[in-house]
Amino acid sequence: MDFFFNPKGIALIGATPNPQKGGHAILRNLRIGYKDKIFPVNPSYAEIEGMQCYPSVMEIPDPVDLAIIFVPAPLVSQIVQDCAGKKIPGVMIESGGFAETGDAGSGFQKELTAIAKETGIRIWGPNCMGLVDTVAGHVFSFVSPSIWDNGLKKGSVSMIVQSGMLSGVFIADLMTHGIMGVSKVCSIGNKVDVDECEILEYLLNDPKTNTIALYLESVSDGRRFYRICKHAEKPIVVLKGGKSAYGASAALSHTAGLCGNNAVISGALAQAGVIEAKDFMQWADIARSLSHYPNASSKNRARVAVVSYSGAAGIVSADFLSSFGLEIAELSSGTLYALKTVSPSWMPVSNPVDLWPAVERNGARKAYGTAIRALCADSGVDGILVHAFAGNFALNFDLSELAHTAEAADKPMICWLLGERQEAGIFQEKCHSQGILVFRELFRAVECMAAVLQKQQPLKLTEETPLPIESSPERLDQMLQKQQGVLDEYLSKQVLSTYGIPGVPEKLVFNETDVLPAVSEIGYPVVMKGIAKDIVHKSDKGLIRMGLHSEKDIFAAVSALSEIMNNENQPAAYLIQRQLETSVELIAGMVRDPQFGPCVMCGFGGIFAEILKDSVFAPAPLSRADALKLIGRLKSAELLEGYRGLPPVDRTDLAEILMRLGQLGTDYPRISEIDINPLMVYDQKLVAVDATIVLTKDQDRSS
Amino acid sequence: MDFFFNPKGIALIGATPNPQKGGHAILRNLRIGYKDKIFPVNPSYAEIEGMQCYPSVMEIPDPVDLAIIFVPAPLVSQIVQDCAGKKIPGVMIESGGFAETGDAGSGFQKELTAIAKETGIRIWGPNCMGLVDTVAGHVFSFVSPSIWDNGLKKGSVSMIVQSGMLSGVFIADLMTHGIMGVSKVCSIGNKVDVDECEILEYLLNDPKTNTIALYLESVSDGRRFYRICKHAEKPIVVLKGGKSAYGASAALSHTAGLCGNNAVISGALAQAGVIEAKDFMQWADIARSLSHYPNASSKNRARVAVVSYSGAAGIVSADFLSSFGLEIAELSSGTLYALKTVSPSWMPVSNPVDLWPAVERNGARKAYGTAIRALCADSGVDGILVHAFAGNFALNFDLSELAHTAEAADKPMICWLLGERQEAGIFQEKCHSQGILVFRELFRAVECMAAVLQKQQPLKLTEETPLPIESSPERLDQMLQKQQGVLDEYLSKQVLSTYGIPGVPEKLVFNETDVLPAVSEIGYPVVMKGIAKDIVHKSDKGLIRMGLHSEKDIFAAVSALSEIMNNENQPAAYLIQRQLETSVELIAGMVRDPQFGPCVMCGFGGIFAEILKDSVFAPAPLSRADALKLIGRLKSAELLEGYRGLPPVDRTDLAEILMRLGQLGTDYPRISEIDINPLMVYDQKLVAVDATIVLTKDQDRSS
Repeated sequence: MDFFFNPKGIALIGATPNPQKGGHAILRNLRIGYKDKIFPVNPSYAEIEGMQCYPSVMEIPDPVDLAIIFVPAPLVSQIVQDCAGKKIPGVMIESGGFAETGDAGSGFQKELTAIAKETGIRIWGPNCMGLVDTVAGHVFSFVSPSIWDNGLKKGSVSMIVQSGMLSGVFIADLMTHGIMGVSKVCSIGNKVDVDECEILEYLLNDPKTNTIALYLESVSDGRRFYRICKHAEKPIVVLKGGKSAYGASAALSHTAGLCGNNAVISGALAQAGVIEAKDFMQWADIARSLSHYPNASSKNRARVAVVSYSGAAGIVSADFLSSFGLEIAELSSGTLYALKTVSPSWMPVSNPVDLWPAVERNGARKAYGTAIRALCADSGVDGILVHAFAGNFALNFDLSELAHTAEAADKPMICWLLGERQEAGIFQEKCHSQGILVFRELFRAVECMAAVLQKQQPLKLTEETPLPIESSPERLDQMLQKQQGVLDEYLSKQVLSTYGIPGVPEKLVFNETDVLPAVSEIGYPVVMKGIAKDIVHKSDKGLIRMGLHSEKDIFAAVSALSEIMNNENQPAAYLIQRQLETSVELIAGMVRDPQFGPCVMCGFGGIFAEILKDSVFAPAPLSRADALKLIGRLKSAELLEGYRGLPPVDRTDLAEILMRLGQLGTDYPRISEIDINPLMVYDQKLVAVDATIVLTKDQDRSS
Repeated sequence: MDFFFNPKGIALIGATPNPQKGGHAILRNLRIGYKDKIFPVNPSYAEIEGMQCYPSVMEIPDPVDLAIIFVPAPLVSQIVQDCAGKKIPGVMIESGGFAETGDAGSGFQKELTAIAKETGIRIWGPNCMGLVDTVAGHVFSFVSPSIWDNGLKKGSVSMIVQSGMLSGVFIADLMTHGIMGVSKVCSIGNKVDVDECEILEYLLNDPKTNTIALYLESVSDGRRFYRICKHAEKPIVVLKGGKSAYGASAALSHTAGLCGNNAVISGALAQAGVIEAKDFMQWADIARSLSHYPNASSKNRARVAVVSYSGAAGIVSADFLSSFGLEIAELSSGTLYALKTVSPSWMPVSNPVDLWPAVERNGARKAYGTAIRALCADSGVDGILVHAFAGNFALNFDLSELAHTAEAADKPMICWLLGERQEAGIFQEKCHSQGILVFRELFRAVECMAAVLQKQQPLKLTEETPLPIESSPERLDQMLQKQQGVLDEYLSKQVLSTYGIPGVPEKLVFNETDVLPAVSEIGYPVVMKGIAKDIVHKSDKGLIRMGLHSEKDIFAAVSALSEIMNNENQPAAYLIQRQLETSVELIAGMVRDPQFGPCVMCGFGGIFAEILKDSVFAPAPLSRADALKLIGRLKSAELLEGYRGLPPVDRTDLAEILMRLGQLGTDYPRISEIDINPLMVYDQKLVAVDATIVLTKDQDRSS
């Protein structure tokens, strides 16, 4: 990939002297920052702004590493062919007019895919803004050259964005407002070849990048993306377009990508330890905060001290800290003592620290300095939120002294600023130059503090003893040879049991006379179900009879079930199951996602299903740590500990079932879907009470 | 109150020529904007900056309407006495050093309360920043005179703030950033006399105010505040400090107010149709948005069109609209046709409108103009969200034309702006001068659109036939004469039934021999409970036996219960109740809040209680409309329609029970608490299955 980022020699196809055109902007941007040779290509010109211009790439005498293409879509394929002929390793196609514009454009895009496959040339784009690398000074993009005017603001956040327009204007906004510097901005467009995964891997190895922010509307290879994120040693922040039903429909008409199933994608991101943002500025703010404190790491506790000049703002801060799961630090006696030395005696000293009376008495410099030094020395404080005001007001503390104190103590210090317009601007710039994070929205300041202090460690790759599984794809093939579509409950549980997932004690009989012996084997009370191949929703058809306590109950149930089965033209088959005591009902399952492959699901079922709407997803296979993390992601996970006298659910047991489900989904691609609903406690272990497996052959399951 | 806002003659006690002191800032502020006579008072000076200075208010020759006091707390009482002696109707005490500083200060504050009561002089403050009135040009405050430098920005939002510091700097921030104008800012401090209610009523009648924003840490008279808000014809936005447990503890040490029970306060605000904000900027943004569109009103549907130059931003906008309960407008065929005339043929046209291809083809002016005109004419569009970029980029549409079009169509149009720093600033100013709301955070833009389009109409005062209630406070007095503390279940339900709240069929017997006859009267299955005066949590003591189906069950229950009662030294009393079928279990209750008086609670109980944590409060008494609104505020109200085969709950029936609870709480102050838990459906009506009433005499109920 390095030829995209540090090419030796660039050809610009579509170079033009017309300053209204993108091809001119690219040329200007290249000439300002790119140090190696530039070869403008355009058959209409012999020279452009004093540079020799070539009629085609074939005529360029020197070697070229990268061709940037900005000509109308119908002309692009031939040019890429030429580039491949000239052994140029990579092209960056910034023109639009491809799959995003409908059928004709899709045709052009397919041609590009074919050329990449045939020739091995790597294609970035099309329909993108290319690359901006502030550190190298590379602007391989038609973004307005005015972004150079105040100098490109360098930083350590690199961005991968699937929105050309946004990448351009949003970056211009961030840079000119001095809000954040960036390292590389990679606009990947329709990604016919180079995709987010490859660039992500490149950036994870890039010494100039410590945090990666992605805006994605589709994920090309979910499994690979998940794997990369999961083991990434740099924080990753993702903003995904297309969450709601509406959002998704807009995404479909916007790019040529699919939005995927958002529960699956969000689940994969959360499982991989990726932070999911929801708004543009928030996305950038969280990324720059993480980048600012690359060494802050997740501790068990994240205890924050608030230093304010206003009781009111302290109160609201405390509310926000609680809502983000941060703790209000309990101050040590040493800290309290230090604060008392600057405060009037009537002032109760506690966290949040209202420093105003101390400021009135001692001036802001002494009051703030004393407070920050004490908090930095306090081992019970993990981060400091400072409220500042810039303007005609006695709050002119020494910012750089505070910054140094916090830095020396290795504690994140984040500043919330109010102030008069002029002075606030100056203060913000001073903060940036001193390396202090400053925000104008209090909520955002706390949110970013939370992102920094709650940062997760990447999952270490560990060897695990694989689960002992008796079965194999071959054995399943045998079992399911003649099956297609939806498997009945009994067979579904048989399949699960070959993978070590136990079912409720049950017996299937085909004859009314076999019912009573089966019942006495299972033991009262029992549930009896009529099993019919094509009826998935048995209870809708009246095919489930619960709470059978006696022979009388059994006879009544058999006669009712046989009548229904008769009416439905189904051969009689009776499933007799042990009726379980009440327990928490869970749902566990597997879905095969087009982007993320087999994914395991876990959630609450029964009466909780519709009310809690609490379910989580993660790509399979799952390690034990994965499975436990997945369970821990349930919002109401504490219900597993036992609830209103119900027996507790053993998390290790549940984890093992989820691992086995994942393994089954991974081993046997013919299964498109598994639902275990409910999964209940029986004899202290979880068992599948009902289950449905769907095979890929016939996917139009009527649920 | 008008002498505070438009006084004829002001005395400034604590005037000083020392520019470091607040007394000097107040004087300068008065001289800049106040048109009538100013009388500086300070025994140390004969004149200050050319104005005659008086040794005390007594020496002022002319009538004075308002005395502003800024001297140390110990001197204040005498000065207020002097003012009262001079028949000055109002004083505004801006000095600190009162209840917020501990015991000595509390003493000074009590003196003020006493003086106000004795003399009738009205006191604003102490410990406040006074009043800023941009329209009249009155700055009765020690806020820095630099706020005049760029002119006070006038607006129609008035603020009432209980935080001196914040009111000063926050307003300076808003004003100098040109973000919003305000009408009046009233900093009320420790409110020994004048409180938020009085000022709120004044502002509701103030023609220069169309929206009121309050920052409150305590509510002095909750019932009055609730009543005023409920019938207010101007929108009210409240930011309350002290929500979390932490927040509340900070509030206690900050002002002399109590935080109250936040579930009660938030409930009262929601019930009154007040918008509760959670952050400072958000509070101001919502208030200015509501102020901007005073005539927008709540419709059944709030359909929004999004006009963007970026598909990505359109997608994220759509997500936000959904999350705020706004609809993505479905565009009429006329609108679609108009959009197609400016878009390339390949571009699918839908909402969110991605206008970039149209901009490229026709220029921003034509593209945006066409789109906004079409959307304004589209009767299926209630509001328009416009994305703009300011900077070196072809997006220079005609802002004022768009503004006029939207204004003529009477549709809220809100702008989300990205842009290069300089240009963005210019654009923002242009927006403000054109009367367009502009935001830099997309989320906030959508949130404010929601506030505008979902604005509630004030509740009309309507006459209602009172509920027929058999009982009376006198009858209750008789029933409860000898009672104190916690009433037992049986007596609690007897009390409720006198107010028309039915209980489950039950019979109380004191003799084992009376049990069986009672059972046969009630009918199997029954529940039997041991009733003991001082045991509230019967199930913890094993005093509840459920599911009794036979004489055998009854005998076992009697013997178990009598043994437990014996051990607890309780006289035997058995309550035999009809055991009800499973239904949704509700909780209903009444609490007597120190600020809001009797408040009615409604929520989900049983297995849902801990999981849903869904309960709502409203001050009593409730009209039928109030009660139905309260029920509708339950997040999971739809469960009442019947859930997984359980019988539905009749909202009218529930509403009536809540009204009766409210009436009981209002009529009979001896009751401090009522819990009906559970409230269940029996024979299609709700009945109290268990209930506890607590009398005020003995409040240390052990729950």
